[in-house]
Amino acid sequence: MAKLIDGKAIAKDIRNQIKNEIRELKQNYPNFSPRLAIIQVGGREDSTCYVRQKEKAAKEAGIEFMLHKKADSITESELLTSIRELNDNPTIHGFLVQLPLPSHINEKNVVETISPKKDVDGFHAINLGNLAKRNCEPLFLPCTPKGILELLKRSGIKISGKHAVVIGRSDIVGFPVFTLLSRSDATVTLCHSKTENLPELIKTADILIVAIGKAEFVKGEWIKPGTVVIDVGTNAIEDSSKQSGVRWVGDVEFSSASAVASHISPVPGGVGPMTVAMLLQNTVESAKRFLQESRERDIS
Amino acid sequence: MAKLIDGKAIAKDIRNQIKNEIRELKQNYPNFSPRLAIIQVGGREDSTCYVRQKEKAAKEAGIEFMLHKKADSITESELLTSIRELNDNPTIHGFLVQLPLPSHINEKNVVETISPKKDVDGFHAINLGNLAKRNCEPLFLPCTPKGILELLKRSGIKISGKHAVVIGRSDIVGFPVFTLLSRSDATVTLCHSKTENLPELIKTADILIVAIGKAEFVKGEWIKPGTVVIDVGTNAIEDSSKQSGVRWVGDVEFSSASAVASHISPVPGGVGPMTVAMLLQNTVESAKRFLQESRERDIS
Ligand SMILES: NC(=O)C1=CN([C@@H]2O[C@H](COP(=O)(O)OP(=O)(O)OC[C@H]3O[C@@H](n4cnc5c(N)ncnc54)[C@H](OP(=O)(O)O)[C@@H]3O)[C@@H](O)[C@H]2O)C=CC1
Ligand SMILES: NC(=O)C1=CN([C@@H]2O[C@H](COP(=O)(O)OP(=O)(O)OC[C@H]3O[C@@H](n4cnc5c(N)ncnc54)[C@H](OP(=O)(O)O)[C@@H]3O)[C@@H](O)[C@H]2O)C=CC1
Repeated sequence: MAKLIDGKAIAKDIRNQIKNEIRELKQNYPNFSPRLAIIQVGGREDSTCYVRQKEKAAKEAGIEFMLHKKADSITESELLTSIRELNDNPTIHGFLVQLPLPSHINEKNVVETISPKKDVDGFHAINLGNLAKRNCEPLFLPCTPKGILELLKRSGIKISGKHAVVIGRSDIVGFPVFTLLSRSDATVTLCHSKTENLPELIKTADILIVAIGKAEFVKGEWIKPGTVVIDVGTNAIEDSSKQSGVRWVGDVEFSSASAVASHISPVPGGVGPMTVAMLLQNTVESAKRFLQESRERDIS
Repeated sequence: MAKLIDGKAIAKDIRNQIKNEIRELKQNYPNFSPRLAIIQVGGREDSTCYVRQKEKAAKEAGIEFMLHKKADSITESELLTSIRELNDNPTIHGFLVQLPLPSHINEKNVVETISPKKDVDGFHAINLGNLAKRNCEPLFLPCTPKGILELLKRSGIKISGKHAVVIGRSDIVGFPVFTLLSRSDATVTLCHSKTENLPELIKTADILIVAIGKAEFVKGEWIKPGTVVIDVGTNAIEDSSKQSGVRWVGDVEFSSASAVASHISPVPGGVGPMTVAMLLQNTVESAKRFLQESRERDIS
């Protein structure tokens, strides 16, 4: 049976480390006060739930939190103005606009208006571009991919030289996971909906990352014994035995996959909690950068 | 025997198309005059040779050309000032700083100072970032990767669904080739010096791109019969029978590989000529964008 990669426990450790780090920094720099803001447009239930999780985790870690709620009817130009205000607000060290947005707003314009220096989601083209460039360090790594790499590292998985297969090529998960794994010296194959012979390719993986959004799509029999499996998918399927009427499953069929994998991350409790922990980490890194800059200004 | 992918002939066709396009545009817009500039720092012989090739090709196509030669001793800040002047010069539609630079100058600072709107080399982080983002079109694609895709398309090679193996992950060749192939719906494996079992992986390729800079490294026996092979490597090896004392070879052993591949690009005369043709294409695209913008300003 595979070893479980307990994302919940790992994320908790990281959140505790962040909390301690903030506490110590505050002792040395009484004005140090990391602050995260989220702009939420409209009242989608799932968005409200994600925003609440981020708020709770931030506050627990000692990060101040500001929520800017906007009506569904906000114009793109009004939204961009709010973003520019946050860019210019020196008390905010990082912020994000909760996606998805209503269809009358162009997501790209929104993301690219966020200052790359406060882009704690890591979605700005300049941060993604620096991720793709050798010898360049983006200011922020996107949270879910960063969390996946952290899961692998904290589970003692060797990445260098290994063959990683990533299924899904979105710009928030698959593509940046590919890039991070390649930067960590894995040989990486990137697959998607046009890939032929997917089960055959999966069989060649030492590390398998699945981020496609298809409930229990990948079967255990496709997986080579000993493979490390990270399941990013988060799919609701009907289940009348649950109070909510749904049950959450990954993109991997857990029962069959856990019988052959060496390590596997469960859904829920795998990648999900890491995403929020990495958002906090990005916010603190940013606050530390701003602190450093202000100290350098004070000295000079 | 493999079909030869004749980059020289394909590049010539493209340069002729560009020439005709410029001629027609000039008839309709007498002020249309695409102009490319290159900043060359120091007098490296290889750089001088590359710059001369670009100058010759530009002029032949009807693109004006300006060379800014700078002494080896130029400071980084002086160089950045020259770049900003070209950014602001409305008669220049595209420019590049010929690499490599003397070691006292930070290449990243140089590349990131070039306006993304004039970055005809396609190396700016924002252009690379938009290349990595779904639904985003960078203003410029890097020339060598763009040329490789053009070679495949003009040779009638189907890319979608195929398994492409790219060897080399530099930010000017391997990595962006990977990205372009994935955007064209290939399943792509990116390999590098830490890859284990390289010959085994090469055997699984339908399309093989080699960009490592190691003379005749990839052998024909590693290649599956029918594979399409693009050899980017450009390596000088001693050859006393040549007047220059050297002979140019690729990263692939041509004699053995051409016996099994379905198509193969030779060195020289494969990818090399395409790089210059794509630089001209990027320059004309940029000049057309500036023309379009000025017409929109005139109308409004
Ligand atoms: N735990 C967490 O914190 C997070 C979880 N997620 C979850 O991860 C999953 C993926 O999210 P996201 O990347 O945003 O999804 P997207 O819908 O943006 O992308 C899905 C990707 O999967 C590919 N794909 C779809 N079907 C198949 C198939 N049958 N075979 C191979 N590839 C396929 C698509 O290919 P193509 O490009 O060809 O269309 C696409 O590249 C979702 O379940 C989402 O809920 C996402 C973010 C965070
Ligand atoms: N025809 C043209 O117009 C152009 C030709 N070229 C030629 O292409 C070649 C590559 O150029 P460039 O990308 O700039 O080179 P770089 O030196 O920047 O990168 C070489 C890449 O190859 C990898 N590599 C090196 N040795 C091996 C090996 N034994 N097995 C597997 N991978 C290996 C390296 O891996 P790692 O990352 O682990 O170090 C690295 O990613 C050169 O010959 C260059 O002259 C380049 C540009 C334009």
